[in-house]
Formats: sequence, structure tokens, C-alpha cells
Amino acid sequence: MDLNCDLGESYGAFRMGNDEAILPYVDSVNIACGYHAGDPTIMQTTVKLAKEHGVKIGAHPGFPDLHGFGRRNLQMSPQEIYDMVLYQLGALHAFTIVNETTIHHVKPHGALYNMAAVDYTVASAIANAVHDFNPTIILYGLAKSELIRAGKDVGLTTWNETFADRRYEEDGTLTSRNTNGAVIETEQEVIEQVRLLSQGRVKTITGNIISLETDTICVHGDNKNAVKLVQTIREMFN
Amino acid sequence: MDLNCDLGESYGAFRMGNDEAILPYVDSVNIACGYHAGDPTIMQTTVKLAKEHGVKIGAHPGFPDLHGFGRRNLQMSPQEIYDMVLYQLGALHAFTIVNETTIHHVKPHGALYNMAAVDYTVASAIANAVHDFNPTIILYGLAKSELIRAGKDVGLTTWNETFADRRYEEDGTLTSRNTNGAVIETEQEVIEQVRLLSQGRVKTITGNIISLETDTICVHGDNKNAVKLVQTIREMFN
Amino acid sequence: MDLNCDLGESYGAFRMGNDEAILPYVDSVNIACGYHAGDPTIMQTTVKLAKEHGVKIGAHPGFPDLHGFGRRNLQMSPQEIYDMVLYQLGALHAFTIVNETTIHHVKPHGALYNMAAVDYTVASAIANAVHDFNPTIILYGLAKSELIRAGKDVGLTTWNETFADRRYEEDGTLTSRNTNGAVIETEQEVIEQVRLLSQGRVKTITGNIISLETDTICVHGDNKNAVKLVQTIREMFN
Amino acid sequence: MDLNCDLGESYGAFRMGNDEAILPYVDSVNIACGYHAGDPTIMQTTVKLAKEHGVKIGAHPGFPDLHGFGRRNLQMSPQEIYDMVLYQLGALHAFTIVNETTIHHVKPHGALYNMAAVDYTVASAIANAVHDFNPTIILYGLAKSELIRAGKDVGLTTWNETFADRRYEEDGTLTSRNTNGAVIETEQEVIEQVRLLSQGRVKTITGNIISLETDTICVHGDNKNAVKLVQTIREMFN
Repeated sequence: MDLNCDLGESYGAFRMGNDEAILPYVDSVNIACGYHAGDPTIMQTTVKLAKEHGVKIGAHPGFPDLHGFGRRNLQMSPQEIYDMVLYQLGALHAFTIVNETTIHHVKPHGALYNMAAVDYTVASAIANAVHDFNPTIILYGLAKSELIRAGKDVGLTTWNETFADRRYEEDGTLTSRNTNGAVIETEQEVIEQVRLLSQGRVKTITGNIISLETDTICVHGDNKNAVKLVQTIREMFN
Repeated sequence: MDLNCDLGESYGAFRMGNDEAILPYVDSVNIACGYHAGDPTIMQTTVKLAKEHGVKIGAHPGFPDLHGFGRRNLQMSPQEIYDMVLYQLGALHAFTIVNETTIHHVKPHGALYNMAAVDYTVASAIANAVHDFNPTIILYGLAKSELIRAGKDVGLTTWNETFADRRYEEDGTLTSRNTNGAVIETEQEVIEQVRLLSQGRVKTITGNIISLETDTICVHGDNKNAVKLVQTIREMFN
Repeated sequence: MDLNCDLGESYGAFRMGNDEAILPYVDSVNIACGYHAGDPTIMQTTVKLAKEHGVKIGAHPGFPDLHGFGRRNLQMSPQEIYDMVLYQLGALHAFTIVNETTIHHVKPHGALYNMAAVDYTVASAIANAVHDFNPTIILYGLAKSELIRAGKDVGLTTWNETFADRRYEEDGTLTSRNTNGAVIETEQEVIEQVRLLSQGRVKTITGNIISLETDTICVHGDNKNAVKLVQTIREMFN
Repeated sequence: MDLNCDLGESYGAFRMGNDEAILPYVDSVNIACGYHAGDPTIMQTTVKLAKEHGVKIGAHPGFPDLHGFGRRNLQMSPQEIYDMVLYQLGALHAFTIVNETTIHHVKPHGALYNMAAVDYTVASAIANAVHDFNPTIILYGLAKSELIRAGKDVGLTTWNETFADRRYEEDGTLTSRNTNGAVIETEQEVIEQVRLLSQGRVKTITGNIISLETDTICVHGDNKNAVKLVQTIREMFN
């Protein structure tokens, strides 16, 4: 089972995340590309670090909204989304070239990820940008989402992503963050969810077990406890 | 004789330049990469346009200073300059991939160009970024500058750039814009200068003729008169 | 009848608009405050210019989205909108202090204006920011909109704004720009619309005449023809 | 003796500093105004917090360089510096109005502070902006600097600022951060320096005691140890 996490989200003097602590426990990382977070020197450092740890390197393109950390929807045309994803992908690619490594995958960030999950037009713009840049790159998207559909339609390999700490609806979509109980708070429940996900299943917010395909599980390393939990999850799969 | 000009300097709703008008008369273009000017959609449009006109495509990386249009010096470490140039180079490269064309050259913009002309450390950071990304890319720099020296030192092909409308000192350096008479104002004098440059010579501000190697001449297309003048220069070489 | 237009929308080296040409023909101006357009030096210049022409000075706050020119919706909390409007209002106020003039009105820009027209929560955040800053400032909003309602609720003087060149629905709302015919193209029709507006009426897109209160009419000075049309409109009221 | 510290340096999701922890131990605070750090909602929160703690509120204007945190010199004309300071001052003023408090002082940030310390033209642009906005505001500047001189020349009250943890040259200027030993590392030495500063003296980097007037001492609260040290300094003056 692949564990992925977001990385390289600092910006200039503003530090974010716990990159060195989480790296030993994940398989693939999604590196911010300078739009919602990250800057050239942080991308350079992060690509080097990822390569040292032997993890798979992914681009994590987001909306051009540093102040909102890419979490606010922006109405952009499909062409603008295509161009914006391509720009960020190319930028990260340059750092993989000089570090003699490669981009394994692309996972959109924040609001772009969420829009692409439900809006095929947005999803398709992203998938086309990735495919036209390099058709061997894998597209990570929310399991069962429009992004996965758009990626397949354009001929990309797609990986269904599920979340260790988020609740699911009966239809396999994520429970909205605005709903009470959307985020799983206890370690025991996170571990239980990961166990089910690794078996192709998940317990919904109403308590039913449904099937849900997982190729990669998203984890977070925001603080010491989070890192410790990821370590525990990692050990489940060793 | 190669004529080059800056292109793709608009930003969102803010329009700058006269790209379609100047393109028929130049051989190579320097495309802004989103830091001092340009954005992903403008880069996409500009790369397409440049390809249609069959001109050589170059990256025009600048300082991250949209408000100052990349014309203000920024103290950055060599590593930061290397990373910043690499980022912009990679971003433009992505647009050349999807348009099935290539990056022919890199020419730093504005304050970065001027700093690289006199500061070998800055020049070397830029040259290394270009070389590590793709050693076949040509580096444009001010004739006789530190940038040309750094490019050669790292093994890049370098092109000496001269200016159709700028005055030169006895030692072949540019007369500072702060000096009276630094910019040539009359068309006749511009044409005369271009004629001398094409012969490997230039008249200095004090009236002497010195030798100065030129591989490419920088022209501008800011307004109707400027475009007409470039057309005249173009015809000199046909 | 008050004619208003947007002003001070340049940014650094990027020039926008035709400020000096339009000023003789309008009564009040809405000055960009550095978020969607404008910068401190442009604000300084524009306030001086507006004072010289004796027009009423207004703040034109927008979303923090220079790339999108403030035309893209941004989901922000009421507190964030309040703070953002307050920030821009304070910034412009400083320029009126040093130029010994005052802020007459506030008119939100672009997507913020449109959201405030239909969303009372957004409208109320704006109205409260204006009122808490200075309750004697007038709030410009789309005639019959939620912004006018919110302004009145908080105790501000409100001015109903109508548009010289936009079509209206039966209920007095603006026809969406996405609908064919939303923007009036011929000068004759613009003049006819202004005549009706000045009588408290408007012709809807389906041809009916409805009543619509107007305190100020928005005009544009984007190009030579636009300025000439505003001059014609001005002369209607002399 | 007045102790001052910088505050409100977060930006959107990027957190910086330890504002609540340091506030009980300082007398005056310098609040970032959205250019090198800070945003409207952070300014709102910080002004409220400062008022609750009864500390004196100051504006902390910086260069428009979020990525460089305002620590990189930017060549701007005196008019541009004047306008930029005025803009930030006005923005903060708006938050003091709605919180029924006032701006007590202005202290330039980072590279702007350092340039103003040695360049009378820069210093004068800042001093004039402050004076024209409100001549009763106090200007904080490096003791013996050009900023203090410019402030006095324009008629402002000026406060000489000294640093608890920086070494001084024989002439009373700060030892450059690029020099070994420029920053005082041990708590004991910081306390000793504060004791001398409070007596109008300082020990230079070569060991001599010189006289140096202090009206306010700058302290930092970057981490737990720093806060504890400030608490100790605070107690020296109780």
C-alpha cells in the first residue's frame, strides 16, 4: 500500500510542515510548485530530500493564491487551468532534471483537487495538461472522482486516493469538512480506517461498510503526533 | 544577423507590448516566464505565436518582482538565483513540449541581466542553471560581459548581444541609462549603429569607432514607430 | 445626474485606462486600492488628479487577485471581507489626508460588487466596514441590490448605481454578461438608455419599460470612442 | 524603559511568531502592514490583541517583498517610498479606528529600516510620509541614524532604538550581521547589554564602553527561550 503526503509547503521565511520527520514513513510525496506554496529554493531542497529518501516524487499544482493557500475556488477557463498546471509541472520537472530523478505523479492541491473531483471540465483540463507534458506520469485523484475518469479517458494511469482521516458517504464520496464528524479525530479510528482501506473497503459515516478501491492513502505530518501516527500506519504494512 | 526582442510581457488583464506586430521582423524572441511579467496562458499563446512565425524561442527569466517589472536589483544568493532561473526555464520548457518546439536560448531580463553583466557570481549561477537543465541551450548576454564569460566557462554556447539604440563606452560597456545621451533617439542614428554592429564595430559615446562582436541585436517593438524602425533594420539584412 | 467611472487601474509598469481623458466628463471616480489593480504611487497620482478636476473621490476595493483583476469570485468569510475592505479603505484614506481631500464614497469592484449585489452576508460585511470606518461615506451599489439594502440597514447613505451600457431584466437586475445582448453596443442605444435612467426608468431586455431608481450612472473610458461617448452623455446633463 | 517587538507577521495559513506569549512583557509593538508580512485579518486580530494588553501600537511598514520578508534592499524613488509607507500607515490606521485606539509610532522594517539608517534620502521620504499623515506619531529609528535625523528635521518626535542582542561598533552603529559575533548569543550578555543600555551606554564589540542614548529597546519573541528572556528583561525594569 502506497502512503503519500504533501511536502515543500514553506515559502521564503515562512516555514510550514515537518518534511524531514515524515519522509521516512511515506512512499510518495506531492511537492508544492510555487503557486499556493513553495518557492524555487524550497522545491530544489525538497526534490533533493525526496530523492535521498527514495520516495516517489509528484507535482502538487494549485491555484495561484498564496494568501488562501490554494484552498479557495477560482473560476478559471479550462485553457487557463491547463496552462497553469502545465506551468507548475514544467517548473518542478526542471528540479528533477538537475537532480537526476523524475516526476512519478501529479496530484492537484486543495480547491483544485476538490473541483476536479466533481467537475469533469476542470478534471479534463488537468488530465490533458499532464498527458500532453508526459503521458507516463500517473494521475492521483480522489477515488471514484471525475478526475480519475478524466485521467482514464485521456489515457493516463490513474491512482485512486483515499484518506486515512476523513469520513466517507454511502456513495464513496468524502463527507464535507463542513459536516460534523467529517474528520476522524482518534488514532484508533484512523488505524481502523487504514486497515479497511487496504482491503478495498471503508466504513461510511452512517456505519455501513462499502467497497472503495485504494491505490494510495493520503497521510499528514503536520505535528509530532501526526508523524507518530504515520509511523504506526507504516508499520501496519511492513 | 540575428534580431531579438522581448515578448509575452502581458499579465492577466494588463496588456503590454505589440507582439504580433513585431514578430515578422525578428529572428529570436525572449519570452517572459511569469516572474517579472507573463503568466501561463500568455506563455502558451506566445510560444504558439512564435512557432507560427518560425522564430527562435528563448526564455527570459527575471526577478520575482512584478511590481517593479524585474528592473530592481534583488540581493539573492547564488543558490537562489540558480533555483529561480531553473524554475522559469522549466516552466517555459513545458509550453515548448506541448507545442512540439524547443528552447533555443536564455536571456536574463532587466536587473538580472545587468547584474549578470558585471557580477561573475550572479552570472555563474545563471549559466550553471542553464547548463544543468540543458547544455545545448544558447546563452545570450551583453557583449564582453561577465555573463558571456561565465557561460563559456561552464561550456555553453554564448551569443554576444548588442543594442540598436544604446550608446557604448570606450571599453565596450553600455553607457548607463542615467547618463544623458545613453539612449539613441533618432532613427537615422539607430540605423547607422546597426550597420556598424553588423560589421563588428560600434561608435562610442565620445565618437571613436571600436570593435565589438555581435551575434544578436536587441530591438524593441513598444509602439508603431518602433515596429516600423525594426522593419527598416530587418530590410537592411535581407 | 452623477456620472462615475473607475480610475487608477494601472500597476507598476503596466498601464491601464485613460484616466486624464475621461476625468473632465465625470462627477465621481472609483480609485483602485492596490488589491485587484493600483499601487501606492498610482493611488497618489490619481487622488491628486481627481482633486485637480474637482471630482468626488471614492474607494474601489476588490479581491486580492491582481492576476484575475478582481473579476473572479473568492470565498472569504464575512470577517475576511470586512478586514479586506477596511484595509483598502484605510490605504486610500491616507492619500486623501496628504492631499487635503476626503473619501466621498465606496464602490466595491468586480466580483466583490457582483457577490455583494446578491449575497446579503457579503454585502453586510462591506457595509459594516465602511460604516465602522466612517459613517458619513456613501455606499454605491447596484440599484435594488443586497448591497443597497445592507448599506441602509447599517445606516449608510446609499446611491443606486445603474449602467449606461448594460441590459436589464424585468425585475431590474442586470442581464448576465454570459447572455447574448447583455452589453449595449451602439452609441445611440447607450444614449437612449441614459435618457431613460435619468428619468428613473429603463427598457428591459424584452422591451418593457420599468421603473429603476438611479443616483449615479457608471460609464467607461477604456478607449477614444468610449471617452467621446461619455462626453456626449455629459452634454445631455449640462 | 520601553521594550518593543515586532508583531503580526503571519500571512494567511503561514504562521510566524509567538504574539500572545510575548505581549505581556513588552510596552510597544510594531505591526506588519501586509507588504513584507501580515494581512488584513491578521492586522485586525493583532490590533485587538495589542489593545487588550494595553501596549502602544506602531506601524511596521516594509518593502513589497513577501518572499524576501522585506529583508532585501529595493531601489525605489523617494516618492515611491513615501507612497508605500503612507499606504501601509493608512491601512493600519483603519484597524485602529474600528478598534477605538490610535497609532503611537512607526518603525520601518528590515531592509527599509537599514537603508533609512544610513541614507538620508530614504529616511526623509519615510519621515515626510509619517509627518504628512499625522505629525503626532513618533518615529522609531536606529539610535544616531539618518532616520532619527530626518525625523527631527521634519518635526517628528523620534525615539532612539537600541537592540538587546546586537553588538555595536565604536561609533555607535550596529555591527553588521555578516561579521562574526554581531549577534549576542548568551542570555547573560543580553541582560548585561540591556542594563548598560538603560544607563545610556553600551559596550562595543572591541570592549569599550561608549555612550548611546536609548528610548526603546528592541526584543524578540521567536521561541520559548526568547520569550523567557524578555520576561527576565521586563523584570529588570519593574
